[in-house]
Amino acid sequence: MITHSSYVVEPWCLRETELGLDLLSQSESVFALSNGHIGWRGNLDEGEPNGLPGAYLNGVHELHPLPYAEAGYGYPESGQTLINITDGKIIRLLVDDHPYDLRYGELTAHERVLDFRTGVLRRTAEWTSPAGLAVRITSERLVSFTQRAIAAIAYEVEPLSGGATVAVQSELVANEQMPHDTGDPRVAAAVDCPLLPEEDFARDTRLRLVHCTRQSGQRVGAAADHLVEGPEGTTWSAESEPDVSRLTITSTLRPGRKLRLVKFVGYGWSAERSMSALRDQVEGAVAAARSTGWDGLLAEQREFLDTFWDGADVEVEGDAQIQQAVRFSLFHVLQAAARGEERAIPAKGLTGTGYDGHSFWDVESYVLPMLTFTAPQSVGPVLRWRHATLPAARDRAHQLGLAGAAFPWRTITGAECSAYWPAGTAAFHVNADLAHAVVRYVTATGDETFERGPGLELLVHTARLWRSLGHHDAEGVFHIDGVTGPDEYSAIARDNLYTNLMARRNLVAAAEVATRHADRAEELGVDDEETAAWRDAAARMAVPYNEALGVHEQSAGFTHFQHWDFEATSPEQYPLLLHFPYFDLYRKQVVKQADLVLAMLTCGDMFTAEEKARNFAYYEPLTVRDSSLSACVQAIMAAETGHLRLAYAYLGEAALMDLENLEHNTRDGLHIASLAGTWMALVLGLGGMRQHAGADGGPARLGFAPRLPERLSGLKFTVMVRGRRLRVDIRASAACYTLAEGDPMQLLHHGEPFTVAAGEPVHLPIPPVPAQPEPQQPKGRDPADRAVAGLPDAGDGAGPG
Amino acid sequence: MITHSSYVVEPWCLRETELGLDLLSQSESVFALSNGHIGWRGNLDEGEPNGLPGAYLNGVHELHPLPYAEAGYGYPESGQTLINITDGKIIRLLVDDHPYDLRYGELTAHERVLDFRTGVLRRTAEWTSPAGLAVRITSERLVSFTQRAIAAIAYEVEPLSGGATVAVQSELVANEQMPHDTGDPRVAAAVDCPLLPEEDFARDTRLRLVHCTRQSGQRVGAAADHLVEGPEGTTWSAESEPDVSRLTITSTLRPGRKLRLVKFVGYGWSAERSMSALRDQVEGAVAAARSTGWDGLLAEQREFLDTFWDGADVEVEGDAQIQQAVRFSLFHVLQAAARGEERAIPAKGLTGTGYDGHSFWDVESYVLPMLTFTAPQSVGPVLRWRHATLPAARDRAHQLGLAGAAFPWRTITGAECSAYWPAGTAAFHVNADLAHAVVRYVTATGDETFERGPGLELLVHTARLWRSLGHHDAEGVFHIDGVTGPDEYSAIARDNLYTNLMARRNLVAAAEVATRHADRAEELGVDDEETAAWRDAAARMAVPYNEALGVHEQSAGFTHFQHWDFEATSPEQYPLLLHFPYFDLYRKQVVKQADLVLAMLTCGDMFTAEEKARNFAYYEPLTVRDSSLSACVQAIMAAETGHLRLAYAYLGEAALMDLENLEHNTRDGLHIASLAGTWMALVLGLGGMRQHAGADGGPARLGFAPRLPERLSGLKFTVMVRGRRLRVDIRASAACYTLAEGDPMQLLHHGEPFTVAAGEPVHLPIPPVPAQPEPQQPKGRDPADRAVAGLPDAGDGAGPG
Repeated sequence: MITHSSYVVEPWCLRETELGLDLLSQSESVFALSNGHIGWRGNLDEGEPNGLPGAYLNGVHELHPLPYAEAGYGYPESGQTLINITDGKIIRLLVDDHPYDLRYGELTAHERVLDFRTGVLRRTAEWTSPAGLAVRITSERLVSFTQRAIAAIAYEVEPLSGGATVAVQSELVANEQMPHDTGDPRVAAAVDCPLLPEEDFARDTRLRLVHCTRQSGQRVGAAADHLVEGPEGTTWSAESEPDVSRLTITSTLRPGRKLRLVKFVGYGWSAERSMSALRDQVEGAVAAARSTGWDGLLAEQREFLDTFWDGADVEVEGDAQIQQAVRFSLFHVLQAAARGEERAIPAKGLTGTGYDGHSFWDVESYVLPMLTFTAPQSVGPVLRWRHATLPAARDRAHQLGLAGAAFPWRTITGAECSAYWPAGTAAFHVNADLAHAVVRYVTATGDETFERGPGLELLVHTARLWRSLGHHDAEGVFHIDGVTGPDEYSAIARDNLYTNLMARRNLVAAAEVATRHADRAEELGVDDEETAAWRDAAARMAVPYNEALGVHEQSAGFTHFQHWDFEATSPEQYPLLLHFPYFDLYRKQVVKQADLVLAMLTCGDMFTAEEKARNFAYYEPLTVRDSSLSACVQAIMAAETGHLRLAYAYLGEAALMDLENLEHNTRDGLHIASLAGTWMALVLGLGGMRQHAGADGGPARLGFAPRLPERLSGLKFTVMVRGRRLRVDIRASAACYTLAEGDPMQLLHHGEPFTVAAGEPVHLPIPPVPAQPEPQQPKGRDPADRAVAGLPDAGDGAGPG
Repeated sequence: MITHSSYVVEPWCLRETELGLDLLSQSESVFALSNGHIGWRGNLDEGEPNGLPGAYLNGVHELHPLPYAEAGYGYPESGQTLINITDGKIIRLLVDDHPYDLRYGELTAHERVLDFRTGVLRRTAEWTSPAGLAVRITSERLVSFTQRAIAAIAYEVEPLSGGATVAVQSELVANEQMPHDTGDPRVAAAVDCPLLPEEDFARDTRLRLVHCTRQSGQRVGAAADHLVEGPEGTTWSAESEPDVSRLTITSTLRPGRKLRLVKFVGYGWSAERSMSALRDQVEGAVAAARSTGWDGLLAEQREFLDTFWDGADVEVEGDAQIQQAVRFSLFHVLQAAARGEERAIPAKGLTGTGYDGHSFWDVESYVLPMLTFTAPQSVGPVLRWRHATLPAARDRAHQLGLAGAAFPWRTITGAECSAYWPAGTAAFHVNADLAHAVVRYVTATGDETFERGPGLELLVHTARLWRSLGHHDAEGVFHIDGVTGPDEYSAIARDNLYTNLMARRNLVAAAEVATRHADRAEELGVDDEETAAWRDAAARMAVPYNEALGVHEQSAGFTHFQHWDFEATSPEQYPLLLHFPYFDLYRKQVVKQADLVLAMLTCGDMFTAEEKARNFAYYEPLTVRDSSLSACVQAIMAAETGHLRLAYAYLGEAALMDLENLEHNTRDGLHIASLAGTWMALVLGLGGMRQHAGADGGPARLGFAPRLPERLSGLKFTVMVRGRRLRVDIRASAACYTLAEGDPMQLLHHGEPFTVAAGEPVHLPIPPVPAQPEPQQPKGRDPADRAVAGLPDAGDGAGPG
């Protein structure tokens, strides 16, 4: 896999100045547009060449049998996979009699720009046909944040070297030919031609296709309308077939004259609504968008983003690449979540079909932390989606012989789709991650309606799960046996520390919220005996610790395992899971991704500073970061334990995961969690932001412990807390806190309480970091150091990064 | 599933007096004939109705992809499955114009008898056609122990109620239609019509078909010749097509006149030999059998079995059902192994396709213990088969990052076919089981040629595996982490005690044998450093023990797990693995099958008597016996710990596993290991036979500690030791040891040494058993008590059992 370094480093956009056909898949992910409901990969307007054609609607999937050579009780039998739905992006072009295809003729210029402030993907291309005719194509594309069902394209073509007759075909295409073969005939049956035609329509400038999936029974409607501007003699006609609806425009263009087309595409889907209802729905959406107009859509998009950036922007001084990366991250995470509206956020957002479009624990543990403090209005719907899947989670718990609810490891609809239980079903921590997200959201926003409603139910049912999953031993200690923590190079362990601490928090939170809303809790059958049992389990939760080494154990006995032989492991043998069997990984001291180190972030108030330092020093040399979920967490804990140079290096790794394709699979979609992790590495890492419970059990308080690595001269960010914008401006030796509006706020700065009031910035000094030995990483696995010369800083905006 | 109780209890045969069409599958397994090379299920001569048609050749299999919804490094990709080869059993009959089919007309009598002394399956059937014509069919069938490639049938038909014109069609049929659908299209593709025709032939009374498998490339030849005796006017003709070769005989029979047919069927297969070579091979085998003749084959069969029974018979006085069952067991285990000749013994022998025809650890751990002392000449070839697969096992170890050899959990060819690694690859104990079998065989037979050759290589490569799989901790203790022991309700545990003790024995044995044959060991690169490392690991092997409870732990921490809630488990929820997820079984104290209890048998010299008693009492209430491999081991350890009534009950369960279809899957084939376990329960259990290493590291000595349960008045058995027949005659208060021939032999009786010389029986008293509390089983899982009235004893031979 070739990595991509042809993006220009600019603060507010991602600019690609030449087209690498061998990197198409990757750039299609990077330039994907989405609003959380619709996703369009950054495919070229003309459809081909492509890496992976992709148009998605959040939730639209197909089912396929999950095969097992040796099946077992409780194994999920039905898989779900995100499918490519009707593609509304396609605008094909013929120049005289040559199809505009970049693989032929000569491409003399090609630029794509993803603008984070306008939310528009712009493309300019100059191409000379095999017959020598030069044309310029300009297109702008958006997926609307304000009109959820709408995506739109403005497309222009003009001849450069002489007159030309052009034909533009604007299409809706269903069942596009896919380039990849999955290898499994049953999965192929689900994703090849997944859509059964129900209706096709074309009239004037309007197109429509309605299809239905075979097994999952989901109806998908797509409609388009067009505005055409061209010289006299420009004509068009529309026609449709079951899998394609097409508007063909022909025009003879003199040099300097353009043919311009605006295409409004409306999408809708439902497993319930009739064909006619869905047809009308998408037609209505398109009519509304057409009445808004292209300029109107642009303006709405800009306004929506202005509001977002005002509450979410992060400014990095001294590292232009990180500056760009964090905005790229914020933009894409927003795209994944903004208008999902009670649907899951897939691990890849709607930028590709990686992980089959499934949603995992990283939504709650990586994506929501960022959204809670930058776009809090998008968090409630995600948690309400989880709540909507509670019946499936309760069924699953019942199937597994457990009480409460067992949320799935991976899913689209809420049903468990993990076919490898040691790293799926056994990873029960997803339930505590969800509970933690509920508490985080309610604490940060004060959304009591949510807490009394879905929040309470989620907390109660997950607490019941933990109580039934664990047991008290003869000494009264509460153990959770046979589970898998975040580190997927360990599995089915006793007392995974992350799981135990998160379960403890879950149990305590459930008891507290049930006490606070006793009437609602009673409706769920919670009584005092049950909350007492939760508190008791929490109080006696096992916390594995190796006295001799003075470190916590990732799970009971972990520190007694054999050490992985890193010296004998070559660079080509990473990621380890592709070169070593699970059995060997599971029984040795080797860590795929932050696990105990993550626990020190999410449950930081349960460790002393000395314990954190010792634990971090112990686990760093074992952690290989074969997961994109690791670097950002290590950045945060490196910062907290005073290793700022290392924190900065990990920040870089998290930030460039997709821009530099560090995991070699950006082609399948962006790593949404790692993107959110970029923000976490900056705000929770260098900013030291925490929202820990009060030491005395009192209300949680927001705290900061800012510290900058040497190379950065400043870091500014805004977070949303209880409806107020709090701005933090960090310099080497001091930090300034500014509240934009609202009542004064109690905060912590390096552990010391202070109050900030609107319009009265507070300046506080930053204590120096004591010098200490740098933790070591496994051989060859140290992150790229950023505190070195040669990297672009803020002044280098013009050069490639 | 209806259990079958229509077998008559007789000492030397199994007699079925009526045909249950709903029990056909089960009786086809019970009445299967085999010599370890050819297997014929007990299908009716006319082919239909059937449960599962079955003709097998040991080793003939087809390949199919192993599917994984989530694949992993080192997962086997190619599955192997035993296939139904050319069926030579079929003899169809038309009576006038009615096909002889028991589903139509009236079956007035039907009897099948499997005779353990003659090795012949006899069938008599009287049937009245829908047109009212009555006929009697008599058939005898054998699979020859002496002519390995030969099976034969003598078939007679006579009219009972008047003259009849009969047509008899004797056939070879390939690609028989199978009744079951596997559900997996790729497995179905492998087992449906697995044979590609290469040649078909029919001339005079001779038939022949040669086929080849699609993927595995194995050529299968079958030939038949016939002797026909009938009244004047009897005519025949032969014809063949690619998948059927047929001799049709027609005759008009008056009452009292018979048509008699003798069919000699010859089989051969090879992945190497050409079509013409294989053709000639099977024709030659048939010609030889024809020259021996039917009576000659019967005489050879009888002579072979007389020799076997003289060295292997077990006489049980006071329990006719057990008497029958143990001979049934001995006969079927002999059938599975007699002429396998360096092929595996499948878990179901060649009696059905259960477990895909794969071979597991139970060959070494259950089947070979019996064969070593009853048919020792059959053991060397089995171990040589394992040795022949050493290259595959070394490749597998290399793939897994281990030294030495890793033998497969389940296989036909030697390649790993287990698709669920926690209960497959992780069950490394199969390697120590194999090493143990080598030591047992060499000790019992003195086969030094084997020890110097394949034995040494097997011991060295398995010792290397253990050395690389385990590691010394900071205190020098040697741990084996992340492995699965025999109990499949636990997995991926630290220091499974059975595995550790067996590995210890493996390491010590390898060091000893390498020292004894230093020249050979040097050829394998073994030096003093390596044997020292083996001895050191063995000496410091971790042995998990719970001091507070005073019991050994099945694996480290096992006794700290939550106890399974047996009270809440209903009888319908067994076997547990069909009603509870693995994750739940793995993390609780519940035992599928003897594991630590098996360790106390195989490594009995590593436990004190008190430890055995305490351990047995602790694990009995946890052991649910959801595996057919458990009851026999529990019988043995119950006897050793003085619980004779319980031992007798477990003996009954092991003995009746297939005769009473206790596991509800006898239809898929017999449980060969449990059948061998019947012998073990009697000889190792009630006879107390052990071959433990000398306490001072001296040569192993054979010992007995006989004790009878109250209901049995006597137990006699013969075992083969170093070529000599040792007869043991046990009564309630004394035992008598008789050596049939050879040099005097040093033995132990209840721990006391004595010497027995040929022709000088030694009588020794049996010490009484101290009274002690009975161990408890999980609720509802206690075995059926046999020490009660109403069960048939030796005098009840005539009634159904």
